[in-house]
Amino acid sequence: MTTLWHHCHAVTMAGGRYAIIDNAALIVRDGRIAWIGAEADLPGEDDTGTIDERRDLGGRWLTPGLIDCHTHLVFGGERSGEFEQRLGGVDYQTIARQGGGILGTVRATREADFDSLYASAEARARVLLREGITTLEIKSGYGLELDSERRMLQVARELGRRLPVSVHTTCLAAHALPPEYAERSDDYITHVCDTLLPALAAEGLVDAVDGFCEGIAFSPDQMRRVFEIARRLGLPLKLHAEQLSHLGGCRLAAEFGALSADHVEYAGDDDARAMAAAGTAAVLLPGAFLTLRETQLPPIDAFRQHGVTMALASDLNPGTSPVLSLRLMMNLACTLFRLTPEEALAGVTLNAACALGIDETHGSLEVGKAADAVAWSISGPAELAYWLGGELPAIPFIAGKEITL
Amino acid sequence: MTTLWHHCHAVTMAGGRYAIIDNAALIVRDGRIAWIGAEADLPGEDDTGTIDERRDLGGRWLTPGLIDCHTHLVFGGERSGEFEQRLGGVDYQTIARQGGGILGTVRATREADFDSLYASAEARARVLLREGITTLEIKSGYGLELDSERRMLQVARELGRRLPVSVHTTCLAAHALPPEYAERSDDYITHVCDTLLPALAAEGLVDAVDGFCEGIAFSPDQMRRVFEIARRLGLPLKLHAEQLSHLGGCRLAAEFGALSADHVEYAGDDDARAMAAAGTAAVLLPGAFLTLRETQLPPIDAFRQHGVTMALASDLNPGTSPVLSLRLMMNLACTLFRLTPEEALAGVTLNAACALGIDETHGSLEVGKAADAVAWSISGPAELAYWLGGELPAIPFIAGKEITL
Ligand SMILES: [Zn+2]
Ligand SMILES: [Zn+2]
Repeated sequence: MTTLWHHCHAVTMAGGRYAIIDNAALIVRDGRIAWIGAEADLPGEDDTGTIDERRDLGGRWLTPGLIDCHTHLVFGGERSGEFEQRLGGVDYQTIARQGGGILGTVRATREADFDSLYASAEARARVLLREGITTLEIKSGYGLELDSERRMLQVARELGRRLPVSVHTTCLAAHALPPEYAERSDDYITHVCDTLLPALAAEGLVDAVDGFCEGIAFSPDQMRRVFEIARRLGLPLKLHAEQLSHLGGCRLAAEFGALSADHVEYAGDDDARAMAAAGTAAVLLPGAFLTLRETQLPPIDAFRQHGVTMALASDLNPGTSPVLSLRLMMNLACTLFRLTPEEALAGVTLNAACALGIDETHGSLEVGKAADAVAWSISGPAELAYWLGGELPAIPFIAGKEITL
Repeated sequence: MTTLWHHCHAVTMAGGRYAIIDNAALIVRDGRIAWIGAEADLPGEDDTGTIDERRDLGGRWLTPGLIDCHTHLVFGGERSGEFEQRLGGVDYQTIARQGGGILGTVRATREADFDSLYASAEARARVLLREGITTLEIKSGYGLELDSERRMLQVARELGRRLPVSVHTTCLAAHALPPEYAERSDDYITHVCDTLLPALAAEGLVDAVDGFCEGIAFSPDQMRRVFEIARRLGLPLKLHAEQLSHLGGCRLAAEFGALSADHVEYAGDDDARAMAAAGTAAVLLPGAFLTLRETQLPPIDAFRQHGVTMALASDLNPGTSPVLSLRLMMNLACTLFRLTPEEALAGVTLNAACALGIDETHGSLEVGKAADAVAWSISGPAELAYWLGGELPAIPFIAGKEITL
């Protein structure tokens, strides 16, 4: 099956730049881009093979499909009640005593069966997908014991089967200390390393391994133990690092050649240097930054200077980032972190693909890559970061097929 | 025509509070609410009259229709290119020299004919309406001369005719100094007072009069002249006041019994007291606050203490607030200004109706008021402010009729 897309302007994002082709055409064969260039340079069918279908994109702007490379999309319950309580002046300790906070989500997730967990996750995924997301990373981390972590990852896999989106799973068992291990965090890490991770990996449920390296979660030494097991299992690594303090998570991630270090507000120049050398991407999460009213800005200039790949994600989670729009993160990254709209678009396309280790096959409109794309009714790519909220009219495609939701 | 809405939870917003009725029913007759209460208390048809139609709302939460009481929805062009330039390090002076900034929008608006102005405004209005907006205020202010101001207001009126939304027009001729009056701002105000406002008012295009009282725009004395004319014309007043500095706009608005003073970041305790006494609402605009990275917070506690009505709006405009979601403003008002979700919902319902002078007929689900409502698939009203971006599933109704866009 060969399709010709034409009458569009392609923002290819090759090399992480706009790299615009005006009046572009693409030939899509078997879900991949077989040719891309100016429509005027389109070879004849002798060279391209028979074109089965022609799609006039009506002068729209075509970008790579958007990639949300950091989400906690699957969870039980939601925390709007807690959001309301906190704004009403109730402190975090009181909310935690009432069973709220992250352990409230852990309890609700453990109690939810597969179907209810799936249904709520699918509803959220559909909202995200409507604005052009074609690849979605989904983390576990609210089960914190084998069966519940498995169920979360199974729900994530099922989303990838039933919805028109590529799902990448990440095991985040080292997200928080489960109540049954209170005061015994080393024991929990042992359980994760000896039992939980190897079992879930053997079941083929884990595409990458992540952890939360922070004073309120796990230390760099504990994360090192998890990383060593993950490496032995042949799994790529990610890390929630330097969000609330500087603990050395970025250096650890770089040392292990992790795909990404995420949040990274408290990262410094040395961290940026180490990440650049290791090819570890920085995943910026402005939704959490805004929601937590943080003031410590990630070191964008150091990342630029050292050439660290900057990705951008929703961090969709019920506590610190109840975000249902990746395009809104592009705006917030520009407004709050002073990314350029071009960097913001790279952050949700090619650089997000880097953060998932799929940049050879996804993230830009280049020959050989998946024909995951979005045709936008806009006057230029800067509009994608410019508008604050609201859904821009768009036609998403995955593997060359138009997505209908 | 009498319709029964039932199987819902009503968040009535009577008195600006949630005032929830669980398991509620409403009788809607000729576009207005004829009865509202617990479904168990529903009178028989002997008392209510014949019910022509029954609508099962499936357990959804029913709120008043959302009201966006401050927008600059009608404009020529957009300024994403300027947004990109500024993030790339180009300063405002250079952009202004290149013809950008607000005068760029003035030029593009003057050059646009009715149809193109209408088309771009309708596209934006549809995005807003999809999330449950049933009343929309639209300001002029990018024409700055009679014909172009008239065209903007005609486009606003036409939106109200063609789309399922009530439109309230505001003449904001005193928005900025047009280039042909450079260095002659008093002369421009004379033109507004003697010619522009009386003409547009006589044509029935003006529901209210607004101005921008700021160092970069017009002084309190100049706004006083505009207000005096508006009062003589019998038109209600609004004012962009105390956004970037404290000039006395709030006191002026209160002195004239204006419907609202808008932005008001630099308002003080005395302003709050005067506004409360005059019944002048404070319209909070967190989209502009965020986009401009302001740090001066509006005096929410003083507004609460003195009982100032707090409304909330998008300020949709191409320069300082390219906002396409009123619900996002609810989240930002909570996160940035520490409003409670209940205050945020009041701010886009009953209190927004106050800011437009229509609170006798709109803004809450009470007997006699318009049956403008939204049925949301949520677990409680706090969810409306909780989620950051994305479209929540909702069924909007205006005057009792389901809206399809
Ligand atoms: Zn996270
Ligand atoms: Zn305004």
